[in-house]
Amino acid sequence: MKLAIYGYGNIGRGVECAVAQNPDATLTGIFTRRAPERIRTLTGAPVYAASDVDAHAADIDVLILCGGSATDLPEMTPALARRFHVVDSFDAHARIPEHFANVDAAAKETGHVALISGGWDPGLFSLSRLYASAVLPDGKDYTFWGCGVSQGHSDAVRRIDGVLDARQYTVPVPEALDAVRGGKAPELTARQMHRRAVYIVAAEGADRAAIERAVVTMPNYFDGYDTAVTFITQEEMDREHAALPHGGFVFRTGRTGLHGEHRHTVEYRLSLDSNPEFTAGVLIALSRAVHKLALRGEAGCKTVFDLAPADLSRLSGEELRARIL
Amino acid sequence: MKLAIYGYGNIGRGVECAVAQNPDATLTGIFTRRAPERIRTLTGAPVYAASDVDAHAADIDVLILCGGSATDLPEMTPALARRFHVVDSFDAHARIPEHFANVDAAAKETGHVALISGGWDPGLFSLSRLYASAVLPDGKDYTFWGCGVSQGHSDAVRRIDGVLDARQYTVPVPEALDAVRGGKAPELTARQMHRRAVYIVAAEGADRAAIERAVVTMPNYFDGYDTAVTFITQEEMDREHAALPHGGFVFRTGRTGLHGEHRHTVEYRLSLDSNPEFTAGVLIALSRAVHKLALRGEAGCKTVFDLAPADLSRLSGEELRARIL
Repeated sequence: MKLAIYGYGNIGRGVECAVAQNPDATLTGIFTRRAPERIRTLTGAPVYAASDVDAHAADIDVLILCGGSATDLPEMTPALARRFHVVDSFDAHARIPEHFANVDAAAKETGHVALISGGWDPGLFSLSRLYASAVLPDGKDYTFWGCGVSQGHSDAVRRIDGVLDARQYTVPVPEALDAVRGGKAPELTARQMHRRAVYIVAAEGADRAAIERAVVTMPNYFDGYDTAVTFITQEEMDREHAALPHGGFVFRTGRTGLHGEHRHTVEYRLSLDSNPEFTAGVLIALSRAVHKLALRGEAGCKTVFDLAPADLSRLSGEELRARIL
Repeated sequence: MKLAIYGYGNIGRGVECAVAQNPDATLTGIFTRRAPERIRTLTGAPVYAASDVDAHAADIDVLILCGGSATDLPEMTPALARRFHVVDSFDAHARIPEHFANVDAAAKETGHVALISGGWDPGLFSLSRLYASAVLPDGKDYTFWGCGVSQGHSDAVRRIDGVLDARQYTVPVPEALDAVRGGKAPELTARQMHRRAVYIVAAEGADRAAIERAVVTMPNYFDGYDTAVTFITQEEMDREHAALPHGGFVFRTGRTGLHGEHRHTVEYRLSLDSNPEFTAGVLIALSRAVHKLALRGEAGCKTVFDLAPADLSRLSGEELRARIL
């Protein structure tokens, strides 16, 4: 399958690397809204202007949209789904129904397949939630994130006066993980599930106490959590906080038996050195499924819930049954 | 959907309990090869002779086949797939391709849908292996089972002279779990991954040393493992080893990045108080998917790899996208 990348940030670079691990995939181009001649790619893949994407349609089986969820994808995915089979990683959970409706209408107009909200949450975590809730109807779900970098929270701290750079880690609380894993089905507040750790490079002469206060009291982002603020130098930031690790845990605990006497715990855990590169791996597997659906003549918006798992794999049905089932 | 149970052992009883947790399901009958009037069900569900199943066809949307994989299901599933939409839990991994071919031919003859190898391994564990390998092509898989009771190994010990009762637990080795979880991608032998613990009630006057020797040297079952044998009384067996707990871990660890510099670990873990009751929960979710496929006019043999996850859920696509994605 011929893949192309639309938007060349962290996830776009992740897709670029991941294509080489998938022998059935070829990267035919990277499309950017910046000046193409100023982009240096990791692999030497050709770079084109986003505005020229239609001219390359013959070389694109699936276009992987690597824009942001806040403003890019709500416009980009419906627009491009009119001309291409596309995959995006739209992750604003509350706005998924609206995004789905827009993309579905656009994709059906012209007979394209569009997979939205690919990645690990939404994505693999969602699959784990769905399978576990279907299998254990009498149960309770928990999703923990981290330990990992939240870009949204890091950006929010960077907007505080006197902050030059910031990195926010979301950290699951070990006692909460243990209580859930042990099948105790606890009721947990946001504060009991996650802590936040913030590393800040402050401007010279900035009021550090004021910055710390602005962080820990920030509505929605920090005020519901216990947050530890640490001031570091730019060198420390560059040396120790350049990576983008992430991950988390999805649990479902539930009961079965005539009187609910038997307890069960389903746990799905990801531990990722590079959030964008792992996400890129998911997007390529989903692109494979989209390509298969397109070849079968399907159309419309899909999510991971609509894809037969076999369609994500390079292996044939026979190989999957013999080796993996 | 109207479900019926064919074969009333541990899994059949599990399905009987689980139906009550699924408001979209009704249990219309339990079919047994034993004398129906001698069966006492857990819920008062009606019991019929297996030979009368055709007479009840109008009351059965999906027939859940709860026979054994060694001799029952290879005959039962193809035969019944000619007359019903069926689900089985065939778990003899090496014989799945042959079973699939037989069931597929039978089901297609008469336009029925047959889901084989439902449960957790094969089943949910297989799904975890498939998704993780599709997403992390450059990686390594590990499956650990336990701590839990293996019926096959327990039966093998019971066949030794002088053994009145036996229970075998498969136990994953903690050091091996830690090495895998830590991303070290170790090469592990069967002995390094699992230990075996056997509890035996011996006949009075039996040669315990001979029994222990017969266990630990038994080819295929025990000779490749470190096995601890403990002799107990029948009262202890009944009191402490009546339950059928099980579970296990599926890992995939892999690398991404231009030079494979980033490591990732995917871990899926089940911890089950009752293996047959949890398996029953999976079979009901799969029956729901089979019912939907049948209503769409599909036919043939399917596995978990062929089912869109959404089809396992009671929730609509809209509800799934709004609540779980």
